[in-house]
Amino acid sequence: MTAPHLDILGIGNAIVDVISRAEPALLAARGLTPGEMRLIDTAEAGSLYDAMGPGIESSGGSAANTCAVAAAIGARVGYLGKVADDALGTVFAHDLRVGGIHFPTAPAPNPASGGLPTARCLILVTPDGQRTMSTYLGACTTFGPADIDEAGVRGAAVTYMEGYLFDPPAAQEAFRTAAAIARDAGREVAISLSDAFCVGRHRAAFRDFVAKHADILFANEDEVLSLYEVDSFEAALEAVRRDGIKVAALTRGGAGSVVVADGQAHPVAAAPATVVDTTGAGDAYAAGFLAAHVRGLPPAERGRWGGIAAAEVIGHLGARPQADLKALLGLG
Amino acid sequence: MTAPHLDILGIGNAIVDVISRAEPALLAARGLTPGEMRLIDTAEAGSLYDAMGPGIESSGGSAANTCAVAAAIGARVGYLGKVADDALGTVFAHDLRVGGIHFPTAPAPNPASGGLPTARCLILVTPDGQRTMSTYLGACTTFGPADIDEAGVRGAAVTYMEGYLFDPPAAQEAFRTAAAIARDAGREVAISLSDAFCVGRHRAAFRDFVAKHADILFANEDEVLSLYEVDSFEAALEAVRRDGIKVAALTRGGAGSVVVADGQAHPVAAAPATVVDTTGAGDAYAAGFLAAHVRGLPPAERGRWGGIAAAEVIGHLGARPQADLKALLGLG
Repeated sequence: MTAPHLDILGIGNAIVDVISRAEPALLAARGLTPGEMRLIDTAEAGSLYDAMGPGIESSGGSAANTCAVAAAIGARVGYLGKVADDALGTVFAHDLRVGGIHFPTAPAPNPASGGLPTARCLILVTPDGQRTMSTYLGACTTFGPADIDEAGVRGAAVTYMEGYLFDPPAAQEAFRTAAAIARDAGREVAISLSDAFCVGRHRAAFRDFVAKHADILFANEDEVLSLYEVDSFEAALEAVRRDGIKVAALTRGGAGSVVVADGQAHPVAAAPATVVDTTGAGDAYAAGFLAAHVRGLPPAERGRWGGIAAAEVIGHLGARPQADLKALLGLG
Repeated sequence: MTAPHLDILGIGNAIVDVISRAEPALLAARGLTPGEMRLIDTAEAGSLYDAMGPGIESSGGSAANTCAVAAAIGARVGYLGKVADDALGTVFAHDLRVGGIHFPTAPAPNPASGGLPTARCLILVTPDGQRTMSTYLGACTTFGPADIDEAGVRGAAVTYMEGYLFDPPAAQEAFRTAAAIARDAGREVAISLSDAFCVGRHRAAFRDFVAKHADILFANEDEVLSLYEVDSFEAALEAVRRDGIKVAALTRGGAGSVVVADGQAHPVAAAPATVVDTTGAGDAYAAGFLAAHVRGLPPAERGRWGGIAAAEVIGHLGARPQADLKALLGLG
């Protein structure tokens, strides 16, 4: 086995975020469940956008956020995901590439030539910092096994996939293709459960994948309870151990995280943070964790890096870092 | 004269901002003068974008920012400016309209049908919070006298124009048309000098306009020194008095502002602020000032409102407010 040429290869839905502050009343009026990610069609995307307040646009996508944060910490990162050849797709690709991330996926044709547009996620941030997401998948639905860059997967120490990829069917297939290649190459496979409702939509597939293919599992408390259909964090920890997952990082918001490595649980305190917008908190945590993981740092230290990265992104609107993460981690 | 149906009608270049953090070395390498706004063509827009780091996109445009902030404080606001019928134009129009701002200007045709695209401003924010702007004007160059909504101007207590409108020639003509209508209707005309370099490019036209048509003048120290070609703030104050401008609000960054009303100078302290990004500071100041002005508040109080609005927008990336400005002003 040759040395990997990438630390992390992320695979996910390539999405541009439209982020707006909103009162809880707007969520109620639109039938939105606070904290949830739901999928919407073009009509609903237009109608919700008209009802939203002024926004900021920022490259997003769960795994892409993780890649951006990990690269900002100094990891060697690649990303696979499908944008369209349109204005938002240009923004998305720019933000990855200038972050030093290898991004080989060919874009879908421009919508003026009949392609689907770049995906967007309408994010409503309530005064408590909670984000509620409505995603129009657009071009992401055309991402499939043919977009899996085999050499990239073989050359990456960790292939990291977001659970949201279970939503578009062709991507779910690509997901399994990538995992099989990574395993065959003797590399590690990491998965984030992404969202408790997404887990609910695809529970059997998630359960099967985690038990059979995942070396590293990322989940928040709601997600891991939903995965194993248990009602306590302790029962979830027990299920993680039973599944024989090598490493699991279970986040608990302001209560920090618990890192399970080789069956042993390491509790990690949360980094101090001012909560402005929780969008991307889990993505950033996974980035910090993986950047420390590929450096061979001990389990609790991986959790600490995750916490510091998460604290940075929840301190401002948007899921991509705005401060110097290397400095925050003392990496000079 | 009937009562105005708008408090403020803003006219300006309709621009979407692309904001990125940058080290001073990037500015030096690109030959950019810190703090300046310069105009760029499509080729330079592409080349600079490729050299910039990851960014966030946000509706911008100097007068449009002022309108957004004033509307957030509760003023009745309209805006005239030219976007294209494209993705960024949709974002720009959305952010104004959902802010409650009347925006009647017809967009230019979609670039796929031969129109110029929506303007964008590439903004580099250095670690000191200073912003340096490179603007591709695109569709803004097609804004002209035909876009002046006469009924809107006649019905607005204050018609507010940004100095940047002197750059595209047809807009400069529109600028004078609007001022003539406002004066004829017995309304007030306000102008912001926008940028010392812009003043330098069009000094004679600015000097003429300010002396003959402006009831309210907004300028920072550099701009007013450039306008009158003097080298002290005191000399500039004297020139403002000599020009017989009814009201002038001269901002001095962290040193606050000086409001000149009927020849008398009222110094106003700056509101406490954490400087993250100064983009839009002057625009927000003008908004707070005008919102207080149309309520008939005393000169120093207008300056105080301006300072509070400016402090909010310099506390985060982007020129549009993210906090509840009414609450910050104690307006419940």
